Amino acid sequence: MKTPVTVLGLGAMGTALARAFLAAGHPTTVWNRTAGRSPELDDLGVIRARSVVDAVVASPLVVVCLLDDTSVRSTLQPAASELSRRTLVNLTNGTPEQARRGLDWAAQHGVQYLDGGIMAVPVMIGGPAAFILYSGSAEAFEQHRDDLAVLGRPTYVGADAGLAALQDLALLSAMYGMFGGVAHALAMVSSEKLSPTAFTDDLLVPWLTAMLGSVTRLAKDLEYGAESGAAGSNLAMQAAAFGNFIDASEAQGVDPMVLRPIHSLLDRAVAEGHGDEDLAVLVRLLAKN
Amino acid sequence: MKTPVTVLGLGAMGTALARAFLAAGHPTTVWNRTAGRSPELDDLGVIRARSVVDAVVASPLVVVCLLDDTSVRSTLQPAASELSRRTLVNLTNGTPEQARRGLDWAAQHGVQYLDGGIMAVPVMIGGPAAFILYSGSAEAFEQHRDDLAVLGRPTYVGADAGLAALQDLALLSAMYGMFGGVAHALAMVSSEKLSPTAFTDDLLVPWLTAMLGSVTRLAKDLEYGAESGAAGSNLAMQAAAFGNFIDASEAQGVDPMVLRPIHSLLDRAVAEGHGDEDLAVLVRLLAKN
Ligand SMILES: NC(=O)c1ccc[n+]([C@@H]2O[C@H](COP(=O)([O-])OP(=O)(O)OC[C@H]3O[C@@H](n4cnc5c(N)ncnc54)[C@H](OP(=O)(O)O)[C@@H]3O)[C@@H](O)[C@H]2O)c1
Ligand SMILES: NC(=O)c1ccc[n+]([C@@H]2O[C@H](COP(=O)([O-])OP(=O)(O)OC[C@H]3O[C@@H](n4cnc5c(N)ncnc54)[C@H](OP(=O)(O)O)[C@@H]3O)[C@@H](O)[C@H]2O)c1
Repeated sequence: MKTPVTVLGLGAMGTALARAFLAAGHPTTVWNRTAGRSPELDDLGVIRARSVVDAVVASPLVVVCLLDDTSVRSTLQPAASELSRRTLVNLTNGTPEQARRGLDWAAQHGVQYLDGGIMAVPVMIGGPAAFILYSGSAEAFEQHRDDLAVLGRPTYVGADAGLAALQDLALLSAMYGMFGGVAHALAMVSSEKLSPTAFTDDLLVPWLTAMLGSVTRLAKDLEYGAESGAAGSNLAMQAAAFGNFIDASEAQGVDPMVLRPIHSLLDRAVAEGHGDEDLAVLVRLLAKN
Repeated sequence: MKTPVTVLGLGAMGTALARAFLAAGHPTTVWNRTAGRSPELDDLGVIRARSVVDAVVASPLVVVCLLDDTSVRSTLQPAASELSRRTLVNLTNGTPEQARRGLDWAAQHGVQYLDGGIMAVPVMIGGPAAFILYSGSAEAFEQHRDDLAVLGRPTYVGADAGLAALQDLALLSAMYGMFGGVAHALAMVSSEKLSPTAFTDDLLVPWLTAMLGSVTRLAKDLEYGAESGAAGSNLAMQAAAFGNFIDASEAQGVDPMVLRPIHSLLDRAVAEGHGDEDLAVLVRLLAKN
């Protein structure tokens, strides 16, 4: 028999997790603060627990995916003793510090703890592009690796419980930077009544895909140092072009707010004498604080 | 014989353009403000002109790629009458307004004018992923499409000379948003002494690639309206998680400046009652100003 699993939380993500476990044949017990959420799970054979305690005792593997750390703590506190000797996998977004506190709390109550960062939106869960970062108990990870693989490729990043959250937040930051830039781009093309989907399919997605090559080069420059003179796009040139972005945005009635911090970083890099270098300088400026 | 071409400007980009024309067998004349730049072109048979006027009269097709619009105008002004009846392709980064002024200036002097936006870094020129947006004279574009194809896929976007610059700046904005987010992400992982290249190759590039799917969905939502309830990632949840990014950045000694405007956009979206909607709201908030 497949490992029985419990999922606490039936928001968009918890529902996707429960659905993936059910589809893979895991006896799946769920609990949600507001009862009756996601009725479509009933047809798939989900077991609804009436309390967190009932939900926890149903399975050796308990996955929690709620809004935030505060809701996780208030939800789990009353079930601390029942969680003892079970594995708790916390897939709620949180900070490294929250994850480390979670591990401490779990250790006090004899709970095996894994903190996780889901690198997927709900529709991707169970599909080939989804991956989930885990840190914390290596033993719990090995024991449940196959169970967790149902959700997305399980990627263990270390015993320090904070490491999954750290890299999760780093990946999400990069994504939000991209989304912010994309929102700006779509506001620009919309201001000329161009089609957002034509622009995105024909130009934007191919362009960002190509520019992932520059992301790879940036990481190499950062780790090994930039080959001197190899920079094909010097920062002085980039800073000069940046004024055009701001001017054109304002001319189109688009607020350039998402671009401003990058503009000021470029200007600062040039002012501090890095005009002939490349983007690795920006990483150092952000980290220097 | 291949069309003789002139390239004005031998910065990193002008040099890559000249090299691609030479590699394709075009008689290629170059001029640069500082003489003797890019000596490697001499072995490829480049012709060096001693003045802008000499450079212009050498070819029916003149490509200019300098730092900015100011340098283009001061460089071309003395050669206005020699440019008459030739095609001028301006691949210098600029605003839609600058492009439209360029077209007007060209029309006054009997010059066929194309404004272009290069969607590539220099190493990509002539390769499969490079594309160049053109707007302005459709006739000039048709006449020189094959010549220009040597540099990258030529993409004509309209007779309004500003349309290439508009979409160029939009694409670059999206790229800089991504680079800003990536710089933040790399500063975060560096703060824990994790390897930037391992993080980038194993996690960051696959993650951003997967999230391009969300970019496509965002454009669809914007154009056709979001399917109600289809949002798998509601803005209230996203705003709640965003505080974690800021807290964790500060705990790691990383300045969250590139994230702040996106944070405040999300908070504003929620405050204005869009907590159950998705990212298309952000585009509207940016455009509303
Ligand atoms: N959706 C995504 O794209 C995505 C991707 C990666 C990670 N995540 C993370 O996954 C987690 C859940 O996200 P989601 O998309 O499922 O959010 P959601 O759809 O907004 O659902 C929020 C869930 O949290 C519960 N909740 C909120 N406050 C609570 C409290 N005080 N006590 C108990 N339960 C509470 C809600 O219960 P009620 O039904 O009773 O309100 C609901 O089950 C978040 O940490 C999010 O950052 C989401
Ligand atoms: N590199 C890229 O990744 C990239 C990508 C797409 C578009 N672009 C655009 O391409 C253009 C050139 O970029 P680049 O990378 O080649 O820059 P670059 O390497 O910094 O070269 C700048 C060029 O402009 C010339 N110049 C500067 N001020 C001038 C003036 N007042 N009068 C005459 N010439 C002047 C320089 O001549 P000297 O040698 O005499 O200084 C040099 O040829 C820019 O508009 C840039 O935005 C670049």
